[in-house]
Amino acid sequence: MRYDKLINGYKFGSFSCVTKNNKKLKLGLIYLESFGRCIPSFTTNLLKSNSIIVSQKHLKKTNRIKCILTNSGCANTACGKDGIKITEEICEVLASKLNVRKEEILVASTGVIGVPLPKKDIINYLPQLISSLSDSKNSVVKFAKSILTTDTEPKIVYRSFDSKNILCIAKGAGMIAPQLNLYKPHATMLVFLLTDLSLEKNLMEEIMNNVVIPSFNSFSIDGDTSPNDTIFFVSLDEKPVKLTRAEIKKLYNVIKNVCDETIRKLLFDGEGVTKVVKIVITNCPKKYAEVIAKTVSNSLLVKTAFHGADPNWGRILAAIGRSGIKFDINKVDIYIGRYCVVKNGTSNFVDDAVVRKVMLKNFFEIKINMNLTKAKEFIFYTTDLSKKYVDINSKYKT
Amino acid sequence: MRYDKLINGYKFGSFSCVTKNNKKLKLGLIYLESFGRCIPSFTTNLLKSNSIIVSQKHLKKTNRIKCILTNSGCANTACGKDGIKITEEICEVLASKLNVRKEEILVASTGVIGVPLPKKDIINYLPQLISSLSDSKNSVVKFAKSILTTDTEPKIVYRSFDSKNILCIAKGAGMIAPQLNLYKPHATMLVFLLTDLSLEKNLMEEIMNNVVIPSFNSFSIDGDTSPNDTIFFVSLDEKPVKLTRAEIKKLYNVIKNVCDETIRKLLFDGEGVTKVVKIVITNCPKKYAEVIAKTVSNSLLVKTAFHGADPNWGRILAAIGRSGIKFDINKVDIYIGRYCVVKNGTSNFVDDAVVRKVMLKNFFEIKINMNLTKAKEFIFYTTDLSKKYVDINSKYKT
Repeated sequence: MRYDKLINGYKFGSFSCVTKNNKKLKLGLIYLESFGRCIPSFTTNLLKSNSIIVSQKHLKKTNRIKCILTNSGCANTACGKDGIKITEEICEVLASKLNVRKEEILVASTGVIGVPLPKKDIINYLPQLISSLSDSKNSVVKFAKSILTTDTEPKIVYRSFDSKNILCIAKGAGMIAPQLNLYKPHATMLVFLLTDLSLEKNLMEEIMNNVVIPSFNSFSIDGDTSPNDTIFFVSLDEKPVKLTRAEIKKLYNVIKNVCDETIRKLLFDGEGVTKVVKIVITNCPKKYAEVIAKTVSNSLLVKTAFHGADPNWGRILAAIGRSGIKFDINKVDIYIGRYCVVKNGTSNFVDDAVVRKVMLKNFFEIKINMNLTKAKEFIFYTTDLSKKYVDINSKYKT
Repeated sequence: MRYDKLINGYKFGSFSCVTKNNKKLKLGLIYLESFGRCIPSFTTNLLKSNSIIVSQKHLKKTNRIKCILTNSGCANTACGKDGIKITEEICEVLASKLNVRKEEILVASTGVIGVPLPKKDIINYLPQLISSLSDSKNSVVKFAKSILTTDTEPKIVYRSFDSKNILCIAKGAGMIAPQLNLYKPHATMLVFLLTDLSLEKNLMEEIMNNVVIPSFNSFSIDGDTSPNDTIFFVSLDEKPVKLTRAEIKKLYNVIKNVCDETIRKLLFDGEGVTKVVKIVITNCPKKYAEVIAKTVSNSLLVKTAFHGADPNWGRILAAIGRSGIKFDINKVDIYIGRYCVVKNGTSNFVDDAVVRKVMLKNFFEIKINMNLTKAKEFIFYTTDLSKKYVDINSKYKT
């Protein structure tokens, strides 16, 4: 493969300009030289972007795709009753220009809710977008930049798998608390997980269910699940390769690694984020662990204590206590880093200054041992809450 | 009644100092000249202050009380296995000094979780606290100040009821999302609702269940339900007055009015609060309305948009959509002030500048019409999220 190429069979386009109405327009295009096989995952928010509704409609007809059109700045959500029609019309024009069926086109949008897609502008600039298509690494970077909103840097993760390649391009900095289901909607995280392997549909669904979705559902920046969250997992639509058990295991690991690295990038580039915290819940049934982890993760008092490196573990214990799960709080142990700050539901009287040192780092771990039952660890990632987050999100129609 | 007296039969004491270990100690005492009848309500957080555990124990033995001892600066929660014993020992000393049974003493604490009560200091200063008891208005103000933590001003609401009086003293600025049950725990809001009427226990319970608890459960500052929330509703323990139906109705109204005014004071003095927002959910079954109202109220994106007077209603609609309730989002209408910004789940294309004017006020209303079924309006109050909130709560062990 050429030194400046990351993946075979894909081209990447992007285009940005300021329109006549003084609005910023940013378009992106992922194009398959032949065709791709796509397994999607969308937000579970009842409010759904028209881009998701149209993509779902198209995917119902065929899993074979030619391209993915993206825009940032406008969520294409709740923007009037013509929203779906406008989205379809744009797909039709793009389809005719690429000489494919409109069902072979997927769309993904991110930005402000309530603003309609600028149909005329998008259609006008499609030729320029198409002519920008290229398979160079530079075009991948430009595409990754075209989907950003409040993110400060493009998120690209690449791994090789034998002679083949796995490339993940993502965006998302706020309204991040993914709740994804296979074939069901989830939002403002956009993830394009691409490979030049040709994988069987069943295997792709398995990987999506067992690796990709659990990974992307395991972190939260602000607890606000967006109506636009989308993952498109795409492989080449050729005769599927036969993989041995060992190869499948290896593929799982590589993709898990790609997802984890992508999430790390999303977390550290979260709106106003200065710290990422790993929450580990042990000895607790998964369904409870999930509720407890999310209650702790989304607590304003916990997040602000993280921000100030304040070893105020009482806020963590109080969040566990109000989570709605019934259990014996006198069994709970809490560790901050390697220090056990709560033993049997009460203070272990560890020196605050020592614990504070752990919390001054930009990444640390909180372990909550519920001592309920033997169970697999449940891991969830969260961030601190800073004044910058408030600044970014209190601005007039960000 | 003397011009400087608010209520008969009660005395109020307070004492504050800096202890030898350089810690601030603030004590308060509500003392009944004869005896009081008390109906309590506590936090539903599984984590409970030792003050609540001890008060619950005492109230199990008798509803007749002599006094309520308060402290601020230390929550008396999760502070070691001797916490309950220490609390009881303090009650015992106070009981002997007042020549009453320790079961006739209630306690309430607010402050940092994990710090044990400074037993020796408290016991040392009890004589000074007792000698400060007085029935003057000035002593009420001093007591109200003694229970404050991050609050900036004392909260006292007074109403007359015929020749009798109702006095409410409260504190609470953060960790405020009351979830109270009758006789069950709820936290860091402390409310002392006192009357010099003598009411029947049954009527007091009815008022608590129908007026006081629903009122105090209908607002949130940060979604963090504290392990210390306490309401003590106290009337004089004399022969109960016989009230006519009309008088009872009037009493309900006066108490509702006292609660609403107290909540208004708590909201506007919330940590870093610059705006209070009334959320009204219409045409929606109560159990759904509650979940929707709380999801909207606690959304970081909604709260920061409130702060910036940003008419970004998409965040409200997205919060409704991720609340977990199943319904048809295409039926939802949203009003900001009198402007219908969302009609049938999509933009009503109202000029942002007009809506922004409503949101620039320090109090405004959001109405969410779910159009599901005829039902009573559900009302919930929330606040904005400011940089000052982050500032206050990221400080080292606030």
